[in-house]
Amino acid sequence: METKEVINRHVTLKDYIVGEPKESDFVLKSCTFSLKLEEGSQDVLVKHLYFSIDPYQRARMKYYSSSHKAPFASVLNPGSVIDTYGVAKVIISNHPDFKEGDLVVGMIGIQDYSIITPATGLLTKIKYTDIPLSNYVGVLGLTGFTAYAGLHNVCSPQKGEQVFISAACGSVGHLAGQFAKLQGCHVVGSCGSKQKVELLKNRLGFDDAFNYKEEPDLNAALKRCFPRGIDIYFENVGGDMLEAVLENMNVHGRIAVCGAISQYNRDKPEGVTDPMKLVYQRIKMQGFLAADYLNSFPEFIEKTRGYLIDGRIESLEDISDGLESVPSAFVGLFQGHNVGKKIVRLHA
Amino acid sequence: METKEVINRHVTLKDYIVGEPKESDFVLKSCTFSLKLEEGSQDVLVKHLYFSIDPYQRARMKYYSSSHKAPFASVLNPGSVIDTYGVAKVIISNHPDFKEGDLVVGMIGIQDYSIITPATGLLTKIKYTDIPLSNYVGVLGLTGFTAYAGLHNVCSPQKGEQVFISAACGSVGHLAGQFAKLQGCHVVGSCGSKQKVELLKNRLGFDDAFNYKEEPDLNAALKRCFPRGIDIYFENVGGDMLEAVLENMNVHGRIAVCGAISQYNRDKPEGVTDPMKLVYQRIKMQGFLAADYLNSFPEFIEKTRGYLIDGRIESLEDISDGLESVPSAFVGLFQGHNVGKKIVRLHA
Repeated sequence: METKEVINRHVTLKDYIVGEPKESDFVLKSCTFSLKLEEGSQDVLVKHLYFSIDPYQRARMKYYSSSHKAPFASVLNPGSVIDTYGVAKVIISNHPDFKEGDLVVGMIGIQDYSIITPATGLLTKIKYTDIPLSNYVGVLGLTGFTAYAGLHNVCSPQKGEQVFISAACGSVGHLAGQFAKLQGCHVVGSCGSKQKVELLKNRLGFDDAFNYKEEPDLNAALKRCFPRGIDIYFENVGGDMLEAVLENMNVHGRIAVCGAISQYNRDKPEGVTDPMKLVYQRIKMQGFLAADYLNSFPEFIEKTRGYLIDGRIESLEDISDGLESVPSAFVGLFQGHNVGKKIVRLHA
Repeated sequence: METKEVINRHVTLKDYIVGEPKESDFVLKSCTFSLKLEEGSQDVLVKHLYFSIDPYQRARMKYYSSSHKAPFASVLNPGSVIDTYGVAKVIISNHPDFKEGDLVVGMIGIQDYSIITPATGLLTKIKYTDIPLSNYVGVLGLTGFTAYAGLHNVCSPQKGEQVFISAACGSVGHLAGQFAKLQGCHVVGSCGSKQKVELLKNRLGFDDAFNYKEEPDLNAALKRCFPRGIDIYFENVGGDMLEAVLENMNVHGRIAVCGAISQYNRDKPEGVTDPMKLVYQRIKMQGFLAADYLNSFPEFIEKTRGYLIDGRIESLEDISDGLESVPSAFVGLFQGHNVGKKIVRLHA
């Protein structure tokens, strides 16, 4: 049988990014690619279907000098394929656990095809296909799990507690807020448009929401929304918002630091924390990565799938099509373009 | 019997303090005072012996507008007696639990005498007098307990962990470091003079120490002292030191925020925390007050008294005499004048 040759396109960086990312920082490259596997290997060839587009990737795209710690295991070097969490379909399999047509989820390159060595354990077979496949990179992916682990494992919410979520219409925020509502908390979100405010209040069940762009005084906005103070803050933005939140935290408050989107493009992040505010109110401020809690991932999947099916959680997805849309999808994250989880769809 | 009249002096603020405190911000006032108790009351009249002089008081001495939370229950208004943790001796008692000559410890005014209503539960009788009385405002007081609770309750040190203490020759720092050594940790301290470095290394058993004033690059100093990174940081100073520490924290590191002496006199504290550093290393940064852990105070007293008697903990005390010395004692805290716990002694 003749080997089929295809074009395999991938997205890469032209150079390390400084400041606000631009679409022109990215380039789409093509290679020819043989749809075949090495004989005797246990490899699997997959075609990519959905990619998760995440703000955290910004930190992987900058240059780190040897005296500063890189933020994660791997920096994305210019020219190399950008990897992300995604869904793929098996085309050819040499591995006994996978067969043609299987759907898998895990870390994949932002490209059309790839060959995976399943021994690395990077791909998990998708068990349930009664929900949209895109959900696996959003509400049932690392995004949803980040919301779940940050809220439950870091903040231990109790019924009746006052919960504030920033970037509440973002991929993680809109889910963290809904998880908090399921715990019986009073939940308020901040976001960047009137449309998002409506969505949070009318569709996602937030108790209140405000558009930070229309609030000249964030401290006053928080005092208005939280006359009883804030017990839990799910931090996604950093900067002035964190400063204002610290003025409104209750004693023994908890802050799960998930992200700081206002800060990612700064060469020198804004300092916002007067550490003494943590002391006076005895606040715990904890950074976390969902990856640290992976042993509860299966439990999370079962539970959250149930919530999705019975309508107790709604997943907002913002899907664009084609590898060509990856640069604008990523750049738009920092301009608040996305409503909910930003996803790029391919071949689907 | 005739009532004895005495002069009762007290220390008070001339006005709320802005910026660096000066001796002239304080004033010593005198009143006449009758050494008698109201008949039928359960009051106790005490003569004050030792006062704890603490940096945290700085935050009580500033003006807070109604839109900003005051740091503690009470702000020290100009003209009112400054209260602090101290040791006193019972002169007259109408209360069945106290008799003349009893020694007590608790919150008292910085003055010669006061009348206490024991029902408030503010005073505790001193049980052991086989150790210096001054110890009760230092190593066996809220200072020692702050070191103990911050290290144990907030940081849960494990044998072999790498512990960094800033202001390590200060009242809390020199004890936190010794408690960490007792847990089998590798302990390094920073301080502000050569003499203090020697003291930490040669007398208090720190594994290493450095003078931050002689380090042009704090990040490099920490890398030199902690080639394996920092697991626990006992934060007493804030500012640049916290920034440098965040560059050197290990994954799942813990920071107990006890104080930030570099920041107390600033109108607008320096922002030092890039919240994303907490995320990448999954760091817990927790403010605490010893007051939250008071149920383990009796256990702490028994244990620490044992350490003092068998020489496993050494308490450094820096004692000055007389109410007149209170202003310079307090002001000196912010200039690094004190070696160990700053105490003012009276009538003793």
